[in-house]
Amino acid sequence: MEENKDIRTELDALGEFGLIDQLTQDFPLRNPSSLKGVGDDAAIINHEGDRTLVSVDLLLEGIHFDMTYTPLKHLGYKAAVVNFSDIYAMNGTPTQIVVGLGVSNRYSVEALDELYAGIRLACEAYNVDLVGGDTTSSRSGLVISITVIGVAKETEVVCRSGAKPNDLLCVSGDLGGAYMGLLILEREKAEYLANPNMQPQLKGFDYVLQRQLKPEARKDIVARLKEAGVKPTSMIDISDGLASEILHLCKASGVGCQLYENKIPLDPTTSKLAKDFQIVPSVAALNGGEDYELLFTVDQKDYEKIQRLSDDITVIGYMTADKGITELVTPDNHVIPLKAQGWDHFKTEN
Amino acid sequence: MEENKDIRTELDALGEFGLIDQLTQDFPLRNPSSLKGVGDDAAIINHEGDRTLVSVDLLLEGIHFDMTYTPLKHLGYKAAVVNFSDIYAMNGTPTQIVVGLGVSNRYSVEALDELYAGIRLACEAYNVDLVGGDTTSSRSGLVISITVIGVAKETEVVCRSGAKPNDLLCVSGDLGGAYMGLLILEREKAEYLANPNMQPQLKGFDYVLQRQLKPEARKDIVARLKEAGVKPTSMIDISDGLASEILHLCKASGVGCQLYENKIPLDPTTSKLAKDFQIVPSVAALNGGEDYELLFTVDQKDYEKIQRLSDDITVIGYMTADKGITELVTPDNHVIPLKAQGWDHFKTEN
Repeated sequence: MEENKDIRTELDALGEFGLIDQLTQDFPLRNPSSLKGVGDDAAIINHEGDRTLVSVDLLLEGIHFDMTYTPLKHLGYKAAVVNFSDIYAMNGTPTQIVVGLGVSNRYSVEALDELYAGIRLACEAYNVDLVGGDTTSSRSGLVISITVIGVAKETEVVCRSGAKPNDLLCVSGDLGGAYMGLLILEREKAEYLANPNMQPQLKGFDYVLQRQLKPEARKDIVARLKEAGVKPTSMIDISDGLASEILHLCKASGVGCQLYENKIPLDPTTSKLAKDFQIVPSVAALNGGEDYELLFTVDQKDYEKIQRLSDDITVIGYMTADKGITELVTPDNHVIPLKAQGWDHFKTEN
Repeated sequence: MEENKDIRTELDALGEFGLIDQLTQDFPLRNPSSLKGVGDDAAIINHEGDRTLVSVDLLLEGIHFDMTYTPLKHLGYKAAVVNFSDIYAMNGTPTQIVVGLGVSNRYSVEALDELYAGIRLACEAYNVDLVGGDTTSSRSGLVISITVIGVAKETEVVCRSGAKPNDLLCVSGDLGGAYMGLLILEREKAEYLANPNMQPQLKGFDYVLQRQLKPEARKDIVARLKEAGVKPTSMIDISDGLASEILHLCKASGVGCQLYENKIPLDPTTSKLAKDFQIVPSVAALNGGEDYELLFTVDQKDYEKIQRLSDDITVIGYMTADKGITELVTPDNHVIPLKAQGWDHFKTEN
């Protein structure tokens, strides 16, 4: 449903329970394991002996998104997809979400319908059921808390902790694009604030804007790895930037790592824009974050399978027995320590 | 651990991951179903064919709690317990929680340690595992999102929708106390704001203050019902007030209800205070909310078992075949429509 700009229904016209009914009315249950969805004290899920996976993400206005340039439908889609990504990163399949929503009366019912239209699109695309939630008012902006439930066979679960020395370090897709999209949006916002009559210059930036505003989770990569009979030894999704995620894998697995800077996959748009912004392109990939690609390790014996599997998987380094030593090998063969700068919300706060 | 008032560690001294480590370090896993807790993309839970129950509650500063009079340890305890209550209301057992936390830099690490000390106490008291979370900064106050996972045998689950005509309507404990506690705290806050040198007058109000600040979930009632072989036909916990919850049961079950006002259980402190505040005591019970008692229906054949079971269960009315007709029978035998005024956050917002 597209938002009709002429209609604005205030939240108190529906009340809490009316609003929940309104927002969740169009979410049919798709998974046999979703026995009971919205409308009771708890949802009922039946996972029949498989492993249940649970993860939560909190998205706060002004910290994780800026309403100046974030369409609500995209925001709903992204909020759901980044949670699904956590389940794929365990080599599992997301099956249900519960959504906690805090809204100020700055938002209309129609605006929240848009947000839920985005959540609904994501649920349809990834075959996930919305099974519950909590909706309340907020004194300051939008608060979105999504908890995702997933499932995996006992033998399929992949944790961060399984990487072994000599395992190959692989990444899906390309990196740094979401960060470039953010820089473009921030630049246009600043220009708009300086001159409100200006038209935003977003032409030609479709790829990086989509990476930022409407990311996808790599369901396809998890499926292809399974088809090819390759079980990663460790896996994580890239939300904070490549460097930070590599350090997580190394710490959890008790290994070290050598990462080759010139192997890091970059889209040409990302490389060009990074140069325009006077950023070294690989630094955007290492520290930018929000790419939601999968970073994983495989045994060396799986090298050929990985090569055949997809052009969309790149081997970028290998794990070492040197616990705690994580190194970046530069194109001119200098070896420098790999550090995470990523997103540390507590440090970037005003 | 008690907070040392002399020490204040800023959040950015630890960073996001350091803070998560600090807050979650002292949460050993207690349930065999908690296969993997904090520290990966998702927690891993193994429920072996039983039903998994999931519920989420969002608590926002300024809406659900007022830091002027809410000790952080109590807040952590309450935030966890109100979630456990949702699982007991399904006749299940809470087993795991994931905690999403948004904090502004007004809070120190020590303050958050207090909050988690309260969550830890609740987890110990109810044998629940903290298995994951997400911690981020917030531009405005504290945001707490707790998702609880629970378990129940297939045949044990009780929904809101099972009440039949002639079933007895029962409630545990007494009602209205939490609301009286809130009124006392609001009164003392107003007096303190008018005269900051004043000492708060909280003596003699222990019972209602505890009901407001440190409620318990009725794990004991669920256990006793099971021991006695009584399975409620429908059940809900009282978070919004008795009237609102009765309407939920009636709507979900497609029945009506006759509620006897003089049967509503009230603690003497609650009755006395209500009169001081010039509120009819039963109105505090009907609309006050936050008592976290269990409201449930049982078949008439279970009447004697319920009577023997506990002095802490009161039969307050019965369900009728008159779908949509919910009535309150006053002490002088007038029959008036039962309406929910409860907490509607969208209407009470400033």
